[in-house]
Amino acid sequence: MPQVDLLIHSAAQVATCASPDGPRRGAAMADVGLIPNAAVAVSDGEIVAVGPSDDLLAAYTARQTIDAGGKVVCPGFVDPHTHVVYAGDRVGEFELRIKGATYMEIMRAGGGIVSTMKATRAAPVERLVQESRPRLDAMLALGTTTIEVKTGYGLDTDSELNMLSAIAALDAVHPADLVPTFLAAHAVPPEFKNDPDGYLDLVITEILPRAADWHKQAAFKIQNSKLFCDVFCEAGVFDREQSRRVLSAGLAHGLPPKIHADEFQNLGGVSLAVELGAVSADHLDVTPPEEVAALAASDTVGVVLPAVNFNLGSTHFADARAIVDAGAALALATDINPGSAPCPSMPLVMAMACRYQRLLPAEALNASTINAAYAVGLGDRLGSLEPGKQADLLIVDAPDYRHLAYQFGVNLVQTVIKRGRVLTV
Amino acid sequence: MPQVDLLIHSAAQVATCASPDGPRRGAAMADVGLIPNAAVAVSDGEIVAVGPSDDLLAAYTARQTIDAGGKVVCPGFVDPHTHVVYAGDRVGEFELRIKGATYMEIMRAGGGIVSTMKATRAAPVERLVQESRPRLDAMLALGTTTIEVKTGYGLDTDSELNMLSAIAALDAVHPADLVPTFLAAHAVPPEFKNDPDGYLDLVITEILPRAADWHKQAAFKIQNSKLFCDVFCEAGVFDREQSRRVLSAGLAHGLPPKIHADEFQNLGGVSLAVELGAVSADHLDVTPPEEVAALAASDTVGVVLPAVNFNLGSTHFADARAIVDAGAALALATDINPGSAPCPSMPLVMAMACRYQRLLPAEALNASTINAAYAVGLGDRLGSLEPGKQADLLIVDAPDYRHLAYQFGVNLVQTVIKRGRVLTV
Repeated sequence: MPQVDLLIHSAAQVATCASPDGPRRGAAMADVGLIPNAAVAVSDGEIVAVGPSDDLLAAYTARQTIDAGGKVVCPGFVDPHTHVVYAGDRVGEFELRIKGATYMEIMRAGGGIVSTMKATRAAPVERLVQESRPRLDAMLALGTTTIEVKTGYGLDTDSELNMLSAIAALDAVHPADLVPTFLAAHAVPPEFKNDPDGYLDLVITEILPRAADWHKQAAFKIQNSKLFCDVFCEAGVFDREQSRRVLSAGLAHGLPPKIHADEFQNLGGVSLAVELGAVSADHLDVTPPEEVAALAASDTVGVVLPAVNFNLGSTHFADARAIVDAGAALALATDINPGSAPCPSMPLVMAMACRYQRLLPAEALNASTINAAYAVGLGDRLGSLEPGKQADLLIVDAPDYRHLAYQFGVNLVQTVIKRGRVLTV
Repeated sequence: MPQVDLLIHSAAQVATCASPDGPRRGAAMADVGLIPNAAVAVSDGEIVAVGPSDDLLAAYTARQTIDAGGKVVCPGFVDPHTHVVYAGDRVGEFELRIKGATYMEIMRAGGGIVSTMKATRAAPVERLVQESRPRLDAMLALGTTTIEVKTGYGLDTDSELNMLSAIAALDAVHPADLVPTFLAAHAVPPEFKNDPDGYLDLVITEILPRAADWHKQAAFKIQNSKLFCDVFCEAGVFDREQSRRVLSAGLAHGLPPKIHADEFQNLGGVSLAVELGAVSADHLDVTPPEEVAALAASDTVGVVLPAVNFNLGSTHFADARAIVDAGAALALATDINPGSAPCPSMPLVMAMACRYQRLLPAEALNASTINAAYAVGLGDRLGSLEPGKQADLLIVDAPDYRHLAYQFGVNLVQTVIKRGRVLTV
């Protein structure tokens, strides 16, 4: 009998989330590829086989076995939109907002994105690593095994490159895989406040080329992973044409586009994303039906971020139900950041999506695994339990995968397995 | 120098939440009795001293010391409204609800409170203990050291008494303190569906006296703790006069009243609670201003349960801000139960309250500690860090107590100390 490194057997359910030909869409979203009384065999950090427990127990011997009796096995979560690398926090601003402070009052009190920019600019790479690492630990313990991370709190050449260095350093020391995104076009820094196009000139002629060069030398654990290029396309930040400039420049340097679109106002960011072949379009809080239809007709993954709406105490959420029903590929993300989403938990995001966006638990799980992997261009390697894929998986202390979204405020993830290694988290 | 059992020192902050003369109200809610660079001394399971770290380090030697450098120490949370003891789950109903099933369709599909009643009736005491214990473990790990638990899934004499036995058994084996509440008037069981008054006759003449007798023999870890009597005062369940009958009968047997009031419709439950001197009035989602004023003029604590609103995907939440501003005593609770709140987390409830009910982090913390202790009649013994109180406290991995509500979906509670004992959770 062939020997494998690890055999997890007798799981009440294995949710494979398998979808080899692209993200799950439409009716396929309600299907997580469930196998009852199932097992997963792993060798050399990859999945060897998934199937009925009796079959795999008969087919393989294993160096290590785990009895997952009464429990669920599913893919590790992929968080495809985060700003998890930063210095400082914004707890004071949180309190001011509750007291009714306006955006401008918060800015005057030193809050907002500029406060995180200042703290991040002041932090050497080592400090960014030190402050961010516990957040990655929390995410991993909650089941997130792959984390997209954006720059965008530096907003000058050195500080943006420092953020990239911190992301690479964290990828090197942390079990999770990190996927970097270049987001110098996150905000207009104070030194350019009357000249946003001047800042974009700097981004395009200096910061972006430096970032692209840096990435050619950078070594991430995921082989040949991309550096993405993102832009905050929003009223008062960058408009549609400015966003096109940034993303086109990124493409010219080989960086596939992503976009922050329609968080507060619709500027046509989704149709721009589709036109440019973006890997994802994110937020989508106010995307009109015709742009949802354009998204559905494209390969761009729509990413919604309900923790942001929750954090603002908002009663409006992106219409994820309509996005799925239109046939678009949908993913979920935390958006973890110190201002609008101090939240590391994909399961809580799933719980929100099921309640305020009317996703089924199966849809929320696909949106947090296989579709989230496609949203970072890694759907061929991550996000599902299929032979040949990286062995990133979770043992969940529940008899049914739907508990991941049904229960909330509790961590049901009992064991995290990353690249076939059973982690202590 | 006197020796104590345990000295926790160098905490960035100790939030005492001290309030010896009754629950915190009004402006005092925004004050958590914060002491910077502070220490707590504990002996024989009680708090001996709280104050500046240098003072306590100079005043005491200790058998065990904990350096809480950079961290926050606060009282253990008191969850004053739960239905955490039950059998089965309602994950299928959760999915049906997302699909748009009506209440009646869910009932026909075997969902609703009756499904939990059936599972609970079918479960021997040992099984209730076995199924409920992991939920208590989750609550304790999230910082809840005292848990009110209601009956009300038995709805017949033997099954209600079985639930009481399970609550007592759990109190005996679990580090958390459990506080029992008799809630046979939680719903009308199917065998009385056309005769709710007939069921109340059974409750009042048979189940309640048996429960009261049982409680005289029962041994809970908290000395001389009460058995409370509760009723679900709601349209379609028990009206105001039926509720008065139940609570008055409870009082006649020595059981202080609590009430479920104004969750969906206002039936005057709050004014009834005030009239009867209830220890708490809970839910308050639709309480009109004149009843909030009556609450404010009373000793009854108002308990709000935002996880229930969240679980239903509702955009309406109890107006906790108005309740505090009116001068009423406010507490928070999870309401953990398998239907409307599968949520063990007081910190997540605090996060919700700050966002959807506009409580300040300080108000949310007082509402989860000292005021919650008053809501279960134990404000003189629990819920704050004051000399002579039971040593139930938390070490929180954050530099500022406001992080407890600012961050969400993550467990910041690093160490739980119950009756002076450092627990492994």
